[in-house]
Amino acid sequence: MNTLRVALLGCGVVGSEVARQLTEHSADLAARAGAQLELAGVAVRRLERDRSATGVDPSLFTTDAAGLVSRPDVDLVVEVVGGIEPARGLILAAMERGKSVVTANKALLADDGHALHTAADKHGVDLYYEAAVAGAIPLLRPLRESLAGDHVTRVLGIVNGTTNYILDQMDSNGTGFAEALEEAQALGYAEADPTADVEGFDASAKAAILAGIAFHSPVTSADVHREGIANVTSADVASARAMGAVVKLLAICELTNGGSTVGVRVHPAMIPRTHPLAGVRGAYNAVFVEAEYAGQLMFYGPGAGGAPTASAVLGDLVTVARNRAGGVVGPGGSWYADRPVRPMGETVTRYHISLGVDDRAGVLANVANVFAKHDVSIETVRQRAEGPTDAELVVVTHKATDQALSATVEDLSRLDTVRDVMSVMRVEGE
Amino acid sequence: MNTLRVALLGCGVVGSEVARQLTEHSADLAARAGAQLELAGVAVRRLERDRSATGVDPSLFTTDAAGLVSRPDVDLVVEVVGGIEPARGLILAAMERGKSVVTANKALLADDGHALHTAADKHGVDLYYEAAVAGAIPLLRPLRESLAGDHVTRVLGIVNGTTNYILDQMDSNGTGFAEALEEAQALGYAEADPTADVEGFDASAKAAILAGIAFHSPVTSADVHREGIANVTSADVASARAMGAVVKLLAICELTNGGSTVGVRVHPAMIPRTHPLAGVRGAYNAVFVEAEYAGQLMFYGPGAGGAPTASAVLGDLVTVARNRAGGVVGPGGSWYADRPVRPMGETVTRYHISLGVDDRAGVLANVANVFAKHDVSIETVRQRAEGPTDAELVVVTHKATDQALSATVEDLSRLDTVRDVMSVMRVEGE
Repeated sequence: MNTLRVALLGCGVVGSEVARQLTEHSADLAARAGAQLELAGVAVRRLERDRSATGVDPSLFTTDAAGLVSRPDVDLVVEVVGGIEPARGLILAAMERGKSVVTANKALLADDGHALHTAADKHGVDLYYEAAVAGAIPLLRPLRESLAGDHVTRVLGIVNGTTNYILDQMDSNGTGFAEALEEAQALGYAEADPTADVEGFDASAKAAILAGIAFHSPVTSADVHREGIANVTSADVASARAMGAVVKLLAICELTNGGSTVGVRVHPAMIPRTHPLAGVRGAYNAVFVEAEYAGQLMFYGPGAGGAPTASAVLGDLVTVARNRAGGVVGPGGSWYADRPVRPMGETVTRYHISLGVDDRAGVLANVANVFAKHDVSIETVRQRAEGPTDAELVVVTHKATDQALSATVEDLSRLDTVRDVMSVMRVEGE
Repeated sequence: MNTLRVALLGCGVVGSEVARQLTEHSADLAARAGAQLELAGVAVRRLERDRSATGVDPSLFTTDAAGLVSRPDVDLVVEVVGGIEPARGLILAAMERGKSVVTANKALLADDGHALHTAADKHGVDLYYEAAVAGAIPLLRPLRESLAGDHVTRVLGIVNGTTNYILDQMDSNGTGFAEALEEAQALGYAEADPTADVEGFDASAKAAILAGIAFHSPVTSADVHREGIANVTSADVASARAMGAVVKLLAICELTNGGSTVGVRVHPAMIPRTHPLAGVRGAYNAVFVEAEYAGQLMFYGPGAGGAPTASAVLGDLVTVARNRAGGVVGPGGSWYADRPVRPMGETVTRYHISLGVDDRAGVLANVANVFAKHDVSIETVRQRAEGPTDAELVVVTHKATDQALSATVEDLSRLDTVRDVMSVMRVEGE
């Protein structure tokens, strides 16, 4: 049996699991790949750290990542360093030297997927990255291959475990955002600097990758309308609950304008508790896919963590090894449809708006006029006295363009009778 | 661009959808497959039927299926006739002539998967059958490819929509089995002869395919312990509800005895309402997969129907076409682990047993003695007076071998104080 030698770039949470699984299950991997997989070297930032728990022969560690990917005895490269550089340069260098690449790098793929696939095609090598979106959940391969005969129309997903954990805590225990974030940090779900998760950058990168694959069009992070969850309040969560809904950070990719454009956005939204995504708890991920013929599909599982992410990396590695052993490459990137991204303002959506208003006659008429002016139709209004002269008005709209809705909110905030626009959140999943 | 010619065997609910989608989306399919896909002929049983709705050129229909698969201008064969023969003979004839095959035929794959894959290998062609299990849900490809670097330990699925619809009706509306079956028939979910669904034959074939792929071992329908839902009563469903559970027909495939054997069974079982499978409603399917590293994954979607099944067939067809255009074949069958199937009696499981007993002192002691004799530990007992001298005893056991549990039930039925063993059902998913 053939032997294929693997260079591993990065030996952190994911990398050390890749190394461990590669060694522990080598017989199974060989049987499935049709080739022995052997670790040729592991690039790390510092050699001093104790890495004996990985079971990797200490002589395999090196700080010379560029040297490792260029070595003629390396056939396949696994990149789990993350970030744009030096990952990007290392991947391109590996490809130039005819080595197939497996990566978990969502930021890089979201920004440079097109260029990386073009390089892979040029050099006749594979580029796989199942682990970049939704961790262990098989998602990119099903979208790319299983649904290749269908027309995906919508992808609606919870693709960031940290924010789902925070929102779930807020919903289940009435915890405030700050407290829930602290809990998530204490449990290791959130990083010390939680910006990438909380502000939706991580989810946006994943949304860009999903939209690109689902709609065969070039989409980058910059194309994604992004709102994080830092402004989600206990009141929002309670208000959602009162209307039988739950707040989730959603990545939404959809075909729009009769299929001629693509909409991609990440924002918190209220979804009905009966929606399959509403039941996704804790740090789990789930992605709902709608396709013309297949109908509604859902994929659910752990979206992060060393072992699950490594499982996805190794699944790709087996495919890439099998392709290499057979002298072929798998399907590459696909952008033939080349659909442009629609501006966020044209998105058709619904809003849940909570207003602090004066509790006196005529206020509702005032507010309703503003909606009418922008041609936004109201579905429900709930009014609740908050004090002797204050009231809260909760308005849920019918569908309208995001542009009309945000202009409505802008005008509402200027009304004398409106003291405060307390919250604005989109309603999805119906 | 290359043109690949497709022979379609069967033009029923699935076949006519395959023909329609193939024609309607030909430009997309070509872009994704890297080759034009053209219908070379459609084999049907009778030519007289009006098939104008399929949009297929009438001159393409033929009753000579054997002739069609042998034609030198045919590159790929799609078999959606179903059943063992003539499907089997036609598939083998196609492979002998170098044609790759896509099929939705679960019965055939469950019985002859090994032989068919061997033939495919021998002739250097592809054999794909995503549509055979759980309709449109991408499941076989994720198991075979995405999880190729992991160790699947358990597959727990609702893989028959008809029985799930019936059980869901019984649970939601308190309908009896017979009435729910009639409803399913009226809606087209169940056939006039519902045996294949209701008695678990359909689910068993799917379980055999899933177990074979998940555990890289040869498993056929005959290896599957099979119990249908015909004996599930309203009382069982109500009893499940009382303990926070719901009755589902489950296909369970698991690694047993430390991974040295495979357990495969299909039977109704009570699962907690908090289990992700409990929320699967109507005719939907869902499959829960547990893997050593990936953790718990779930795949959910429509398990049957013309359009969803055709979506899965076309996904395979694109792969097979891409392989053919590239002069390669995809990964074939994998049985290297060659694990034997464990006898059902050795399965470790829990029972929910409902007994009609005399309402007098000493009965519970009597019953408890029988459990003790077989070393079966009791988790809970609930007793309810049913009449002046009757009572119902509901016993839920701890885990024990199926053998010990069924011997216990056997002995209970012989007790003088037990008037009737009203129901016996396994408890799963905890």
